[in-house]
Amino acid sequence: MPDGVAVVGASGYGGAVAAAILRRHPSLELTAVTARSDAGRRHDELYPRYRVAMTLEEFDADAIAERARAAIVAYPHGAAAPAVKALRERGLKVVDLSADFRLDRERYERWYTQHEAPELLDEAVYGLTEAHREEIRGADLVAAPGCYSTAALLALWPLREHLDDVVVDAKSGVSGAGREATQTTHFVSVSENVQAYKVEGHRHAAELEQELPEETRFTFVPHLVPIEQGLLASCYVTTKLERDAVLDLYRGAYEDEPFIDLADEPPGTDDVRETNRCRIHVSVVGGRVIVLAAIDNLWKGAAGQAVQDLNLMLGHPETEGLE
Amino acid sequence: MPDGVAVVGASGYGGAVAAAILRRHPSLELTAVTARSDAGRRHDELYPRYRVAMTLEEFDADAIAERARAAIVAYPHGAAAPAVKALRERGLKVVDLSADFRLDRERYERWYTQHEAPELLDEAVYGLTEAHREEIRGADLVAAPGCYSTAALLALWPLREHLDDVVVDAKSGVSGAGREATQTTHFVSVSENVQAYKVEGHRHAAELEQELPEETRFTFVPHLVPIEQGLLASCYVTTKLERDAVLDLYRGAYEDEPFIDLADEPPGTDDVRETNRCRIHVSVVGGRVIVLAAIDNLWKGAAGQAVQDLNLMLGHPETEGLE
Amino acid sequence: MPDGVAVVGASGYGGAVAAAILRRHPSLELTAVTARSDAGRRHDELYPRYRVAMTLEEFDADAIAERARAAIVAYPHGAAAPAVKALRERGLKVVDLSADFRLDRERYERWYTQHEAPELLDEAVYGLTEAHREEIRGADLVAAPGCYSTAALLALWPLREHLDDVVVDAKSGVSGAGREATQTTHFVSVSENVQAYKVEGHRHAAELEQELPEETRFTFVPHLVPIEQGLLASCYVTTKLERDAVLDLYRGAYEDEPFIDLADEPPGTDDVRETNRCRIHVSVVGGRVIVLAAIDNLWKGAAGQAVQDLNLMLGHPETEGLE
Amino acid sequence: MPDGVAVVGASGYGGAVAAAILRRHPSLELTAVTARSDAGRRHDELYPRYRVAMTLEEFDADAIAERARAAIVAYPHGAAAPAVKALRERGLKVVDLSADFRLDRERYERWYTQHEAPELLDEAVYGLTEAHREEIRGADLVAAPGCYSTAALLALWPLREHLDDVVVDAKSGVSGAGREATQTTHFVSVSENVQAYKVEGHRHAAELEQELPEETRFTFVPHLVPIEQGLLASCYVTTKLERDAVLDLYRGAYEDEPFIDLADEPPGTDDVRETNRCRIHVSVVGGRVIVLAAIDNLWKGAAGQAVQDLNLMLGHPETEGLE
Repeated sequence: MPDGVAVVGASGYGGAVAAAILRRHPSLELTAVTARSDAGRRHDELYPRYRVAMTLEEFDADAIAERARAAIVAYPHGAAAPAVKALRERGLKVVDLSADFRLDRERYERWYTQHEAPELLDEAVYGLTEAHREEIRGADLVAAPGCYSTAALLALWPLREHLDDVVVDAKSGVSGAGREATQTTHFVSVSENVQAYKVEGHRHAAELEQELPEETRFTFVPHLVPIEQGLLASCYVTTKLERDAVLDLYRGAYEDEPFIDLADEPPGTDDVRETNRCRIHVSVVGGRVIVLAAIDNLWKGAAGQAVQDLNLMLGHPETEGLE
Repeated sequence: MPDGVAVVGASGYGGAVAAAILRRHPSLELTAVTARSDAGRRHDELYPRYRVAMTLEEFDADAIAERARAAIVAYPHGAAAPAVKALRERGLKVVDLSADFRLDRERYERWYTQHEAPELLDEAVYGLTEAHREEIRGADLVAAPGCYSTAALLALWPLREHLDDVVVDAKSGVSGAGREATQTTHFVSVSENVQAYKVEGHRHAAELEQELPEETRFTFVPHLVPIEQGLLASCYVTTKLERDAVLDLYRGAYEDEPFIDLADEPPGTDDVRETNRCRIHVSVVGGRVIVLAAIDNLWKGAAGQAVQDLNLMLGHPETEGLE
Repeated sequence: MPDGVAVVGASGYGGAVAAAILRRHPSLELTAVTARSDAGRRHDELYPRYRVAMTLEEFDADAIAERARAAIVAYPHGAAAPAVKALRERGLKVVDLSADFRLDRERYERWYTQHEAPELLDEAVYGLTEAHREEIRGADLVAAPGCYSTAALLALWPLREHLDDVVVDAKSGVSGAGREATQTTHFVSVSENVQAYKVEGHRHAAELEQELPEETRFTFVPHLVPIEQGLLASCYVTTKLERDAVLDLYRGAYEDEPFIDLADEPPGTDDVRETNRCRIHVSVVGGRVIVLAAIDNLWKGAAGQAVQDLNLMLGHPETEGLE
Repeated sequence: MPDGVAVVGASGYGGAVAAAILRRHPSLELTAVTARSDAGRRHDELYPRYRVAMTLEEFDADAIAERARAAIVAYPHGAAAPAVKALRERGLKVVDLSADFRLDRERYERWYTQHEAPELLDEAVYGLTEAHREEIRGADLVAAPGCYSTAALLALWPLREHLDDVVVDAKSGVSGAGREATQTTHFVSVSENVQAYKVEGHRHAAELEQELPEETRFTFVPHLVPIEQGLLASCYVTTKLERDAVLDLYRGAYEDEPFIDLADEPPGTDDVRETNRCRIHVSVVGGRVIVLAAIDNLWKGAAGQAVQDLNLMLGHPETEGLE
């Protein structure tokens, strides 16, 4: 019998993709979808192509606990922590897509707000699968990394002990900004436009800071580009390593990874659209290492990685439901 | 009486914009438009919205010399040099949009091909107006910089003596790849895609290498983004200068420039679409200088700057026809 | 001395274009721009590329009357009528972009809401320039037609006495939905999507109903397409007229019109982008007349036509500031 | 053991999707992919996200016959017929995506060219599954309908005996124009553009003419819109039937169809992207029946429907591999 899984917050883009993936998962069964403002509507009315023929419910931890052994929570930061807490108290394993459990408390409260469930931080594992696979396997609460962090950290991970200086210039599709209608996400604002934002500091930088060695000097600048889904992190690294050593590190780290492709050509976001893959190209030009990593921000950058983590947490093959 | 000007190669994107600008120019009169494969067709059939009601002619230097005192040449590299030579021999002042006269011979032949008119290289001036205004004013032959080079050099120029290390991550719209139909410019290839290309070395890097101090260490990586017109150069600079000194250099260099805006917010390509402006934002974050420069690749990055240069060469106010 | 003109509601898309056109108009001077929620901000901060270096003011009819002889009002329907009334009371000539003065009272109140200034309806002229030029010339209050109505009526006008049956299938860019951020205008909703809406009845149909002969049977269905600006009306007409008679009517009606092009090929919205032109293609296939009309919804479909009308009202050449 | 299936012409958009679908099909096994100009390259180099890890071969009917019981042929018209013939001679069941077997010989040679294998026309079945399911089940050769024809015929089929007059205004994404790079498919030509084409007669009209009752008066006009995949057919029908009778016909015809959704709201192309579904909305407004049908032109309009037909031909459940 498949494991029941709920998606809490299934009306946003990330939660909707989580529901879509779970609907077709061979070992997990989607047993509940919840939403805040859209409760009462059908999921397939909001997202016809995902074909999740279920009604969005109000969040009720008890009702979910009756039907689900685990949950993916896709609420905004701040709102996620209380929901996660309620589900954990009822014994559910949880993957949280928000920032609420990604950072240590000090970092969280510096970049975000007061933490609503700090007592859970100890058990939370940072869910970058390729970096923390074994911890995730044994975890009850996993914090799925931010989309930018996922691409940047996968790009840099094999070199993490050798990073003298790093520039991450990242380009994200608009779904990364969420489903809320704002001036920023208006079609007319986005179309024919490319623009950096939060140059002085984007919250995902806190994850890089936490995951990379303390002494790493890095700059991270996100850009918005007129695509729906997709994220490209272009990383420029100064290192003392020689070219062959660099390439060996990447091959060693990634050649057996099921969701990472080391590509001969610079990856395009379209190469990984609606897949859980991260496609990485490494080159060394004029002594600088250039690492280009493309993901789908809603899949490997959010819901796909969440299911990848959930597979591990529930003892299923890591790739199930994601190919 | 207005000065007659011809556009040689007016069927490509850059040449077409040059014709569109000249059509409305108060002191210059567009007297001839030529094309290679499209000769015989009307310009406003190819580009209805530019409303240039003229027939594209075969290139004939004598016929042009009868009607024009100057020309903008918008041929591909290699094809431009012979046309420029023929026009210069007939006494016309020329702004060339190709790479043929941008580089010294050694650099040109390393990055491009054998030079067809090396005897003209001595008189050619690199047409980055804000950097070489006085030389342009007296020149008979000006080489308009590449679109990437224009944005990157304008971003870096005030700091050029203080650049220890530079990363230029540039994003260009598809018109920068020219009007030729290729797999790369196919709508289906471009849409929902962001991709780096020529990571190992793009020809415009030769211009940066030539214009920046020899000791500058720089990396330049171009990306293709799904917009028609527009180019954003995101520049990451390591320098010994302090923040205030950096900002002073930019204000000093640019506050009186008619086509440069120092913006309080990161510029979007849409802010400068179909204008000759370069919009620049400078910030210093964690000791790194981040300079973001947005242009329209066909205007300030090609035809607009060509007219700006031509205005100077012919003694007209620099901004005429460009506001 | 140029005539002072105010744009009331210059922060929306239509009003912003009106301001941009007036800024460069040789005989009209933009003397005030107002906004409701954006008052206090600079116009060129909201719309850098339009380069209107003015601060948006709160609406104050007296203050405007001191500086302006005429106004373009670009408020939503309902909000427009009181502003128009206040300006008319102070003697200003007004072109209103809303629906408030396009329809007779009965039609207005059936399709929209209670009318706030019915006493002005008598003096209001429907501002489809090519259809009502002489009335507009003498008018003090002109109601600029809706964008859909402009394209459809220009497509059908020469045949208006011979329309047995008409289908208008119209496709509009997203700026037609206004600057308000909604789920409908979110980039992710629009991109890769084409969709009909208001199939049961769109308000612009009321204008067609009013302007076309009463006995004309017509169906009008609007569609949203992923472009910023542009509108194509594809009209399918059953008529008793023969092909040559049809073509003669179009040539007779339009060959001297300064802003209408009779095109040999089906027009694309890109052919007229950021122009005040309407490009029309007429063909007769299998006994059906197919008329395709492309406009820029913010220019000929709103602000451009408003200036065209204003030129007439103020005694200037009709095309001034619009080429 | 799964049935081996080859895709002949797997480097074009339609063939590539066929290969992608078959790769994941539970009962069919993709055993060969061929290409003309791209033979020797890997499929997943051309289309990384489809993850077909196979090398494109030259077409060799004998080699294919050893590995496959059936084939999907995705060549251009004219080139398809000889390949189909070679495969049929070796006993393979074939679904052909080209026009070569859709029409009777007279129609084909009027709209296309001389037929290369007229002797096969008798056995060919027109593969609009919902209309010809039983014939397809017993067929050895099925001609998959054109993308426009699929959407238009599915929109009209329940009413086909009651169509007095029909206008089909269809909007297609760019992948419908094929992978060949042309001026028409250039990103800069497509972006910000909506345009009708082949107003005087598009070849898919021949399929409508053949499939609809002879006396039906219809007009079909295709438009190109800036999306990658998707097709919307907006159909305007004059009929003598009353509203309830119309709706009953649609419900009766489609409520049990596995790939047709009768939608309460006008369908968007994005609702069916990368699905084999046709989403249809029917309304009756002012006595006119408006039927809106959205499909993915590469799925239900090409490769998806081909697999749907192949499932029937090979005795598998119709929906296998397509959900």
